[in-house]
Amino acid sequence: MNSNTITQILKELDFRVAGTLWIESKEGRFLGPGRVELLERISNTGSINKAAKEMGMSYKKAWEMVSSLNAQAQKPLVLTQTGGEKGGGAVVTEEAQQLIEYHRLMRERFRAFLEKESAMLTQP
Amino acid sequence: MNSNTITQILKELDFRVAGTLWIESKEGRFLGPGRVELLERISNTGSINKAAKEMGMSYKKAWEMVSSLNAQAQKPLVLTQTGGEKGGGAVVTEEAQQLIEYHRLMRERFRAFLEKESAMLTQP
Repeated sequence: MNSNTITQILKELDFRVAGTLWIESKEGRFLGPGRVELLERISNTGSINKAAKEMGMSYKKAWEMVSSLNAQAQKPLVLTQTGGEKGGGAVVTEEAQQLIEYHRLMRERFRAFLEKESAMLTQP
Repeated sequence: MNSNTITQILKELDFRVAGTLWIESKEGRFLGPGRVELLERISNTGSINKAAKEMGMSYKKAWEMVSSLNAQAQKPLVLTQTGGEKGGGAVVTEEAQQLIEYHRLMRERFRAFLEKESAMLTQP
């Protein structure tokens, strides 16, 4: 079995290897692309509500994701400020910024893996 | 940013990096874990219907997956025999067996990648 055979089996040569990656614990998914994007948008907007709207996500869903993130971390990753959850702002902690950066580097390593696999798949 | 910081941020040390991998074309997903399992079960049972039942999947869904696989390959990957789609048997071609094997080897390389990433995540 070599990759040459695979390209002969597939109809076109535009096939590629794709995938998703996330960090999980026994309690379930902890951090994947969606949650990272949410954290980034909360960081940029200072608001869970605005971040949720930008992603076309309900506030409830966003709040649940934040709660899950906070519950699995030693210290909260998103701090909500006075004025009520929707009224006040939200702050992404330094720890969360580090997690975002770690996830970004991990995704880069994954992208390299996928590119290598895609090349193996399609090369003659 | 080093991995030591990450273990300090996460509450427990049972975190791991997980993911899924698939082959796709411009027409969409071609081959992932579910379709590989379906092909393997069709190969073992000689029947799309039996394979679908084993996976708790409707016959319609299984048939659509087989159709999609066949449509994207140069030659059909699953051949259905006379007697009607449900009545007759189904044969997984040599090309499909090669794809199954290719996917298995690709998953092994992915597992090694995930283990390396998990180790990086949790090591002190």
